[in-house]
Amino acid sequence: MRNIKLVLEYDGTDFLGWQTQASGRTVQQETCLVLEQILQESVNLIGAGRTDSGVHARGQVANFRTSSSVPAQSLLRAMNGLLPADICVRSIGEVAESFHARFDARLRVYRYTIVRHRIAIGRHYAWVVHYPLDVERMQRAAEVIIGEHDFASFCKSASEPDHHRCTVAESRWVVENDAMVYHVRANRFLHGMVRALVGTMVDIGRGFTPEESFRDILRALNRLHAGMAAPAQGLVLEEVVY
Amino acid sequence: MRNIKLVLEYDGTDFLGWQTQASGRTVQQETCLVLEQILQESVNLIGAGRTDSGVHARGQVANFRTSSSVPAQSLLRAMNGLLPADICVRSIGEVAESFHARFDARLRVYRYTIVRHRIAIGRHYAWVVHYPLDVERMQRAAEVIIGEHDFASFCKSASEPDHHRCTVAESRWVVENDAMVYHVRANRFLHGMVRALVGTMVDIGRGFTPEESFRDILRALNRLHAGMAAPAQGLVLEEVVY
Repeated sequence: MRNIKLVLEYDGTDFLGWQTQASGRTVQQETCLVLEQILQESVNLIGAGRTDSGVHARGQVANFRTSSSVPAQSLLRAMNGLLPADICVRSIGEVAESFHARFDARLRVYRYTIVRHRIAIGRHYAWVVHYPLDVERMQRAAEVIIGEHDFASFCKSASEPDHHRCTVAESRWVVENDAMVYHVRANRFLHGMVRALVGTMVDIGRGFTPEESFRDILRALNRLHAGMAAPAQGLVLEEVVY
Repeated sequence: MRNIKLVLEYDGTDFLGWQTQASGRTVQQETCLVLEQILQESVNLIGAGRTDSGVHARGQVANFRTSSSVPAQSLLRAMNGLLPADICVRSIGEVAESFHARFDARLRVYRYTIVRHRIAIGRHYAWVVHYPLDVERMQRAAEVIIGEHDFASFCKSASEPDHHRCTVAESRWVVENDAMVYHVRANRFLHGMVRALVGTMVDIGRGFTPEESFRDILRALNRLHAGMAAPAQGLVLEEVVY
């Protein structure tokens, strides 16, 4: 069996997220259907991260095993010919039999974009925050999470596996023209983690939550202490590093 | 009567262009309806340029006269509260009684974006061109049109007013990551002009049309000599300068 790795881009606007559901449109399901149509065999597509409903990806990684001998580049062209307009394959390649898109990922890179006024062009890829934000306060909060921490306060579901520890390698806000972009990379992310972090930092930036509380929120290990989740549409899974 | 100037942004994907039509959704009509709803009087909205069906704008300018005394900033907020998600007002201000968005414009600035592979995020704002393009050849063609020329070869309709002369101040290709962006600014643009220029330059970039022919096409003063129009979705009216 060959093991094939895909790098996928998708516009999450009209998807119920990555993972196949009993009903509703998902990226995993749409991509599997196209693969099965081309390969004429059933496909088990393993994604690096289960992005939520409405979240986008520029560099989601997935792998699957196949008995087909179709060249990887032909498969890429066939997939891009058949996939719906809101999913595409960016690159494809054969990998070692042992490669696992989820377990082997060393780093996931996300970006969250906030704009300061209403936009029309690209409105599906940003969160509009009208109130004034103190980006320096948000920056100081962002730095607090660098390193290894227990992120239970920023985890949506109680159903997470063994533990809530994540090691954050980058966490910073970058002001780009009219936008504020949060760059974060970590070995793993819990369910809803980036959106809970962004929502909480926005509360700090607008003065709703004192800056000093951020450490207490992190230490509380309780989702009720953190702020509301920022909307899904501002979030993009940029890259998965192996 | 007060004279109000608006700077509008819109995502042209779901519009039949700027200008009000007998049927179908247009930016002028949707914006007028909202203004009339707020001001409770009929509004004649004058746009700087009549963008075609599917063309976007980040800086379309329009003006209208009103007997209302509502402060400009209140009007901006009211408009942005009522306009559909694909139109927004970026700024607003009172201008001299004589100001005319179309006749007083000195320069219009457009950008056309080409991407070299299929994309999902932002796919409504670019043209995907798969074949290899020689950007240096396209750059040399772009430079040919700088200055004052008769652009009849790049004008869609025979129904243009008095003449086809335009003075081009900027015409160049910029490579930005995976994209090639054509920047063009001129005192005026004819109907379909940027899209015909881009389509013809792409024919040159892919080797379909010899580079040397570009001057002959310009001199022919006949639309049949130029290439196909590039698709509307890659084009954005960025700015109108007064």
